[in-house]
Amino acid sequence: MRIPLRSCCIFRSFISQKQTLDTQQRGLSGAAMRLVQFRRTGDGDDIRVGVEQGEGLNVVDLKAFDSSMPSTVRELLQLGDKGLDCAQRALASGQFVVERANIQLLSPILAPEKVVCVGMNYRDHCLEQNAPIPEEPIIFSKFPSAITGPYGDIILPPESQEVDWEVELAFVIGRRGKHIKEEDALSHVAGFAVANDVSARDWQFKRNGKQWLLSKTFDSFCPLGPALVTIDAVKDPHNLGIRCLVNGDTVQSSNTSQMIFKTAALIAWVSKFVTLTPGDVFLTGTPPGVGVFRNPPVFLKRGDVVECQIDQIGSIINKVV
Amino acid sequence: MRIPLRSCCIFRSFISQKQTLDTQQRGLSGAAMRLVQFRRTGDGDDIRVGVEQGEGLNVVDLKAFDSSMPSTVRELLQLGDKGLDCAQRALASGQFVVERANIQLLSPILAPEKVVCVGMNYRDHCLEQNAPIPEEPIIFSKFPSAITGPYGDIILPPESQEVDWEVELAFVIGRRGKHIKEEDALSHVAGFAVANDVSARDWQFKRNGKQWLLSKTFDSFCPLGPALVTIDAVKDPHNLGIRCLVNGDTVQSSNTSQMIFKTAALIAWVSKFVTLTPGDVFLTGTPPGVGVFRNPPVFLKRGDVVECQIDQIGSIINKVV
Repeated sequence: MRIPLRSCCIFRSFISQKQTLDTQQRGLSGAAMRLVQFRRTGDGDDIRVGVEQGEGLNVVDLKAFDSSMPSTVRELLQLGDKGLDCAQRALASGQFVVERANIQLLSPILAPEKVVCVGMNYRDHCLEQNAPIPEEPIIFSKFPSAITGPYGDIILPPESQEVDWEVELAFVIGRRGKHIKEEDALSHVAGFAVANDVSARDWQFKRNGKQWLLSKTFDSFCPLGPALVTIDAVKDPHNLGIRCLVNGDTVQSSNTSQMIFKTAALIAWVSKFVTLTPGDVFLTGTPPGVGVFRNPPVFLKRGDVVECQIDQIGSIINKVV
Repeated sequence: MRIPLRSCCIFRSFISQKQTLDTQQRGLSGAAMRLVQFRRTGDGDDIRVGVEQGEGLNVVDLKAFDSSMPSTVRELLQLGDKGLDCAQRALASGQFVVERANIQLLSPILAPEKVVCVGMNYRDHCLEQNAPIPEEPIIFSKFPSAITGPYGDIILPPESQEVDWEVELAFVIGRRGKHIKEEDALSHVAGFAVANDVSARDWQFKRNGKQWLLSKTFDSFCPLGPALVTIDAVKDPHNLGIRCLVNGDTVQSSNTSQMIFKTAALIAWVSKFVTLTPGDVFLTGTPPGVGVFRNPPVFLKRGDVVECQIDQIGSIINKVV
């Protein structure tokens, strides 16, 4: 499904949004940008990195600006400040602009080494199911093959009758690390995106020995985007309105302030176990309003349209097919 | 830890091992080979693909034979028959041989998209813990960052006091597919390797909301190797002696015939959920004899040496540090 340029798009001056957290603490370049991956119409499978001129606006083609730059955001992040500086110069150039109408927007990250997911991480979501507030993060995963674009289809698998939505704040690692201290953790974050942690509840609660992996990792069960909004473009990632709409009806509406384990705590926790590398994606848990805890339960059906929105980051819209 | 060339290595004529299954059914090239990844002494981080001249013997440097060939086995598999044919010609050339003494052997697969693991998949392992035989495979995962080489160290994390061994038959996907039928499944297999599904039992059974991921995915918790033994070099993957030795004492000894869900069934099952791609690694479950079910339980400690052996495939030896 192609979503047309939405009339509600607002051009945002990135200058005014910059440096709300201590840049020194963050370590990365301090560039407030919206990084995207896209295909140009007629270019076949050729993936390119772009920088949006504003939410939902045209994109500057990074490789056209500097042919030495890589073709994926993951590789760009691996370059560290050098890559982000170049992207910022590309944006500032105002040249090499590709019209929105001529691109297909992809997930801003494809093929990460890890998709790390957090369960039961909103206070209000725990209350919804009469579950205790976890004392430690509950970590599970999706395979990278589950990732689909911000306007990609959610494919309803014949194996599940209980496919549900979960809007989530995603963040992406920009700098490698192990045993990262909580006070240093934000310097390892490249930026944020919107994700839908699509979940097959029958497989999550009744099958596969109650290991959640399969229920979470069907192909297309991780819509992600619309952009990787760099950390300096987000005022306070833990005070953002977060909503999910199904066929236009608001089914989830909360605030990321409800998160139990916040970005820095999650990085410190997970990096006790594994080395984090640029491009790793974290999905930080969902607020209340999922279908399975409704009375009666509601699940996605063919033809539904699911929109996940987070303030300052954007919106992803996925049709169920 | 560097392991010297072992005196028990036996040169195996691959001709005699070939085509024991119907090659047509398998689809891939039909080349009986032992593919490895290695670094040459003094080459820094440069990874190369090699073909062993026999188990534990010298290796033919694929890129030296044909500079158009890739630097990783995963990329080689993505080339399909073309890549395997070239590797076979390289082996047959008898040239471009690198002495075993001058290489560091790495895992034959690094950075796969998926490490798919199967729980409770040996009849005798279920009996050991008085657990019912599963009616469906139980699937969980490790992050690719857990993979270490056949002679790499197992790093004991301070976060766990109960680190355990699990020798497992691993197989690697050679051809992309979704909804693969069981009767076609072996045509998607590139070959087999030996794995150790190292597991932190405290984290598996008592922490992380009983989701197994963290217990299984500490860095270095997936020793893999010594080679990717192509499917045509293995007589019957489901009739192989499989053993684990800790400090020379045999702690696990069984046969892959005890596997409940075999290679083809696992591929058919998992590909209902996800698209499989070349390089994806499956760990197919462990036989009885793990430390946690001993009386009293036994766990790995610094200085231990764990050797996992599977007939026809080889041996991986990992020191606990």
